[in-house]
Amino acid sequence: MTFEQWMRGTLDRVETALEHYLPGTNVAPARLHEAMRYAVLGGGKRVRPLLCHAAGELTNTGASAVEAASCALEMMHVYSLVHDDMPCMDDDALRRGKPTVHIQYDDATALLVGDALQSQAFVALTADGNGLKDAQQAALTRELALASGSVGMAGGQAIDLESVGRKLSRPELETMHRNKTGALLRAAVRMGALAGDKPSADNLAALDQYAAAVGLAFQVVDDILDVTADSARLGKTAGKDAQNDKPTYVSIIGLEASRELAVQLGRDAHAALAPFGARGQRLAELADLIVNQVN
Amino acid sequence: MTFEQWMRGTLDRVETALEHYLPGTNVAPARLHEAMRYAVLGGGKRVRPLLCHAAGELTNTGASAVEAASCALEMMHVYSLVHDDMPCMDDDALRRGKPTVHIQYDDATALLVGDALQSQAFVALTADGNGLKDAQQAALTRELALASGSVGMAGGQAIDLESVGRKLSRPELETMHRNKTGALLRAAVRMGALAGDKPSADNLAALDQYAAAVGLAFQVVDDILDVTADSARLGKTAGKDAQNDKPTYVSIIGLEASRELAVQLGRDAHAALAPFGARGQRLAELADLIVNQVN
Repeated sequence: MTFEQWMRGTLDRVETALEHYLPGTNVAPARLHEAMRYAVLGGGKRVRPLLCHAAGELTNTGASAVEAASCALEMMHVYSLVHDDMPCMDDDALRRGKPTVHIQYDDATALLVGDALQSQAFVALTADGNGLKDAQQAALTRELALASGSVGMAGGQAIDLESVGRKLSRPELETMHRNKTGALLRAAVRMGALAGDKPSADNLAALDQYAAAVGLAFQVVDDILDVTADSARLGKTAGKDAQNDKPTYVSIIGLEASRELAVQLGRDAHAALAPFGARGQRLAELADLIVNQVN
Repeated sequence: MTFEQWMRGTLDRVETALEHYLPGTNVAPARLHEAMRYAVLGGGKRVRPLLCHAAGELTNTGASAVEAASCALEMMHVYSLVHDDMPCMDDDALRRGKPTVHIQYDDATALLVGDALQSQAFVALTADGNGLKDAQQAALTRELALASGSVGMAGGQAIDLESVGRKLSRPELETMHRNKTGALLRAAVRMGALAGDKPSADNLAALDQYAAAVGLAFQVVDDILDVTADSARLGKTAGKDAQNDKPTYVSIIGLEASRELAVQLGRDAHAALAPFGARGQRLAELADLIVNQVN
């Protein structure tokens, strides 16, 4: 199977699983469920589900187990986007090429959509018959909760807020991103592996190294695209970072050095996968996909 | 042990456990952790932790297991208060006798405090060494996630928003409250029982009946107090329901009928506890405590 075929098949399965794990609009409260589906379905690159599926290839995961984990990750990610776009945060009107939830609905609905998507992520992880054993449900909940909370994604968002208009050093910038986006990307990789045969501590450590490189590359690429791509390509408002005076890799080390850094991080990601041999192929290809966006 | 002694001892343990399960202000991001602690510690009646502990008496729960469950419930409850108080929701300035989080800090911080408290609830439920077995961690996560999400608390909030200024029937009002507050109170009772020896389906059904009566009584009492008590006693702004033109039991069936309903629901709660004999004592006493606030 080529990478493109694997991607297409995986994305189809993820979309079907998201459909399944999101309450239908025939379930009350209908408007809230409609807004949750508006936020999650029909858009997004599904980077976390792809990483989760790719890591799942290392440990013989069952299809439904890795799908439940993927859906939980994507719901968690989308909740963070919905809340980040709200007026009291980044105040953004465009996301994944569509009006943001608070624009399409209203602020209160956007707040509740995010809140309910976070809960729904844990519903998916612990749903009866989702293919995950009790111990896996508990372990994946632990991974996802830590990655999403105050020492992960939400914490990174808090650091981000405090950094607006302030000059960050490069280590400070990395700390922020390690929390804000890195923690959930790392969780995606770990959860994929943990959804199958129990991985060794060494293998989890190797995956952490891979995820650290990919997570940072992801952010560097995002910073580059914010200045080089237009809103139509991004599906969100371009140039927001400079406009909001947010520190980025481009503002701190410049565009060319940022490009070189992304390439180096891609190499680091490949190196971390050495213990897995051919089984690490999809993870390696995903690292390339992320880095190659800016080359 | 008298009920008062049991209450005092339980509340002390809950407070200590919350201290333990909330990240310290020495952990980055310090300001977010300070705000989370501001929201959770030093206030609140801790109704859900008390119900959880009382139900735990039925199934020989270990102390740390029921404490972890109680903390998760209280964090989930407090996150909902923090978000509900925000300007785009109820826009309230006073909670538990203190300025609300968005007043004390800012809107963005209040948003993140709520988001991170929800995650932290699941961290507590799945923390290593919290006294809950894998299967219990998974089961309690399932209970809490369903009770908090779009078919529970967040869903009830969405129905509440849509009902402002609209005339609700009594069944509609009950549906709203069964989601908005009832679901989490029910989860408190069930999680307490599930944190110990596996309860029978019959016993869980009896607990559901108890929780349904107590949950409704809780809301009826809240509606009565909103018109009969002052802000100092409530620790939150009194008279808000009428001011916001929100449907309440008092507005639909009147004050006297509301008082009678609360008393009847207290009797229903007692009746549901029959299968448990003397072990149901604390749950019975808690039902009385809730109902007696208005008598």
